[in-house]
Amino acid sequence: MRILDARSFSVPGFKAWGIHSGIKKNEKKDLAIIYSDREAAVAGVFTKNRVKAACVLLNSAKVKSGKGRAIIANSGCANACTGKRGLGDARATAEIAAGELGVKPDSVYVASTGVIGEFLPMPKIATGIATAVGLLSTSGWEQAAEAIMTTDIYPKLSIVQEEIGGKTVTIAGIAKGSGMIHPNLATMLCFIVTDANISSPMLKKALLASTERSFNNITVDGDTSTNDMILCMANGAAGNRRPGTASKDLRKFQACLDTVTLSLAKRVVRDGEGATKFVELVVRGAKNPVEAKRAAMAVAKSSLVKTALFGEDANWGRIMAALGNSGVEMDEARTDIYIGKAKLVEKGLGQGKAADRDASLVLKQREFQIIIDLHKGKASSTIWTCDMSYEYVKINAAYRS
Amino acid sequence: MRILDARSFSVPGFKAWGIHSGIKKNEKKDLAIIYSDREAAVAGVFTKNRVKAACVLLNSAKVKSGKGRAIIANSGCANACTGKRGLGDARATAEIAAGELGVKPDSVYVASTGVIGEFLPMPKIATGIATAVGLLSTSGWEQAAEAIMTTDIYPKLSIVQEEIGGKTVTIAGIAKGSGMIHPNLATMLCFIVTDANISSPMLKKALLASTERSFNNITVDGDTSTNDMILCMANGAAGNRRPGTASKDLRKFQACLDTVTLSLAKRVVRDGEGATKFVELVVRGAKNPVEAKRAAMAVAKSSLVKTALFGEDANWGRIMAALGNSGVEMDEARTDIYIGKAKLVEKGLGQGKAADRDASLVLKQREFQIIIDLHKGKASSTIWTCDMSYEYVKINAAYRS
Repeated sequence: MRILDARSFSVPGFKAWGIHSGIKKNEKKDLAIIYSDREAAVAGVFTKNRVKAACVLLNSAKVKSGKGRAIIANSGCANACTGKRGLGDARATAEIAAGELGVKPDSVYVASTGVIGEFLPMPKIATGIATAVGLLSTSGWEQAAEAIMTTDIYPKLSIVQEEIGGKTVTIAGIAKGSGMIHPNLATMLCFIVTDANISSPMLKKALLASTERSFNNITVDGDTSTNDMILCMANGAAGNRRPGTASKDLRKFQACLDTVTLSLAKRVVRDGEGATKFVELVVRGAKNPVEAKRAAMAVAKSSLVKTALFGEDANWGRIMAALGNSGVEMDEARTDIYIGKAKLVEKGLGQGKAADRDASLVLKQREFQIIIDLHKGKASSTIWTCDMSYEYVKINAAYRS
Repeated sequence: MRILDARSFSVPGFKAWGIHSGIKKNEKKDLAIIYSDREAAVAGVFTKNRVKAACVLLNSAKVKSGKGRAIIANSGCANACTGKRGLGDARATAEIAAGELGVKPDSVYVASTGVIGEFLPMPKIATGIATAVGLLSTSGWEQAAEAIMTTDIYPKLSIVQEEIGGKTVTIAGIAKGSGMIHPNLATMLCFIVTDANISSPMLKKALLASTERSFNNITVDGDTSTNDMILCMANGAAGNRRPGTASKDLRKFQACLDTVTLSLAKRVVRDGEGATKFVELVVRGAKNPVEAKRAAMAVAKSSLVKTALFGEDANWGRIMAALGNSGVEMDEARTDIYIGKAKLVEKGLGQGKAADRDASLVLKQREFQIIIDLHKGKASSTIWTCDMSYEYVKINAAYRS
């Protein structure tokens, strides 16, 4: 597998672009189109929130076909909690894009992110789609990645290549995240494109596995959004032999997909709203994988732990309290906690001022690891999270106004 | 029932006091003693966190006797995650206090709050206990209430009187809260004293019911602490006839206890870390009481909802997203949301700019109500919560240092 520079992002058979259509009040890009010059296998993962945006309802139905040609995504308006009118607007968006692209409406997927409860400005969207389609380019991915941003600071792109089935296959993706990031997705959009030739059921299986190992292992603020989705399009332009079930080629494809999704998921956390720290949180020695993940998530979600991380305070008591409150089997007298390489806690007891100082030095870094060993079993789980800063409150107190 | 002024706080047969013993680095009070001049019935409720402080372990065992004479409480050090030495220190604290008070060690309960993972400074505690015992007074409650504060801004006291079993009975309590407040307790201490003559099993039952209706319906930051407890002492000094099972007297006692616990619980939220808003959140029309509470808690705990409240932003989409994510049966197209009297959402749809403006005016108040009607059934639940401000992050980023 080769990890390519995002600046040379290009996937055979695909074009993309992003523009400012006027949905956002500022001059920032707010409309993206991704287009495949031939029919692609499509797989999707959607929010588990019971309140689902119009685009989620629409795509969930469309994706059953396992096929598609394009994605039209907007930021600035979530088109969620908008009832029948919202659903009609999402359908109309797909139809307008289909008309401009000369494809069937059923083959166009729709994604929206932004404020909930407002309607899409359809005339602006119609004009915007026409403009964006005219600008579609094989190198328009950074524009597309920018156009799906909300409170994100950086566009997020990731691209890898691998020899699969006798050909060089490219697997790449763009994502947006920032707030409301939490497992089972969250206000997070991710679009993955590949020129691999792969069956739609196999693509779906690979995407689900990959999501579980990446986007479902990150948390920014514990909230889950109404709009989130991952869409993956595989158009077969590489001309590779289709990977067989349990084949080496399939494993290679899965590894590539995992690299792209994990890379994007980590970028989403690094760019978490107001985040100043990027933390890899490992729970090991848990009784089973479910308990390992539950314990890690309880620590990663605790506002008290997250504010202590922001304050660069080795306040391990808050980690212990979060573990105790997670519902998993743990015994304080067996638990070890490391921050970086500093063993802060052994068998439930603080290791004194020198350990505290070592941990404090690690906490001053921008990125570090926290390891919790429960000594209860052999299962482990890794979660990526960030701290909670003044900036997080500021961004979210002012988001709509 | 008469609600008395906290400044005239006094309960027959009880004395209290609070001093600075040197546990806290500043000059603030950090050691409180509550003493009954005769044996009292005692009931307790303790944290459900698996990581339990030494005082919780100790008291859980002691309270089985249903009896006691005194409570010694300190702030500034939680004596949690301190292993055998911590448990020994808690025992020693009870023994020292018992010696000074001339009572049996088994009859002295211990409570601690503050930083986790540090040991109690036993020589300071011993000196402090001797001093505090010498100062015990029937009117020392405000001093005691101050001595159990950590990041609290105000001491919290509540006192009521009622005619029960032919006598005037006083029921009163002090509490501390602020951070880590969440159902099933949280870094929250509450000591209730009454001169009622009531059996210990009946007291326990009344306390559990009261806790469920008060402290288990509040949330500040979703974290639950290792140290929390509610202790209730009833010394019988009022000389009333013991209330019988299902008697009118018992109902009156329960109502008084509920008033005291709810009053203290609300004060804990009002004084939540960095809180600028006090919100009464009502979910009605839920399928059953469990779902009503789960839905209300999901909204009350959402960082995105709490920061929007701080920003005085009627961003109802975040409320809807939190409901959708709560796991309860709900249908966006049936859901109504009110902020104060402003109907912001009807059947899942925003009610336009006028409703938005009305809601924004309500949000500018210090205290208001949010009502969510799921129109799914007849159950309802009320939760008290606060917003999340810059100050919350500041307090918790800097707490230890």
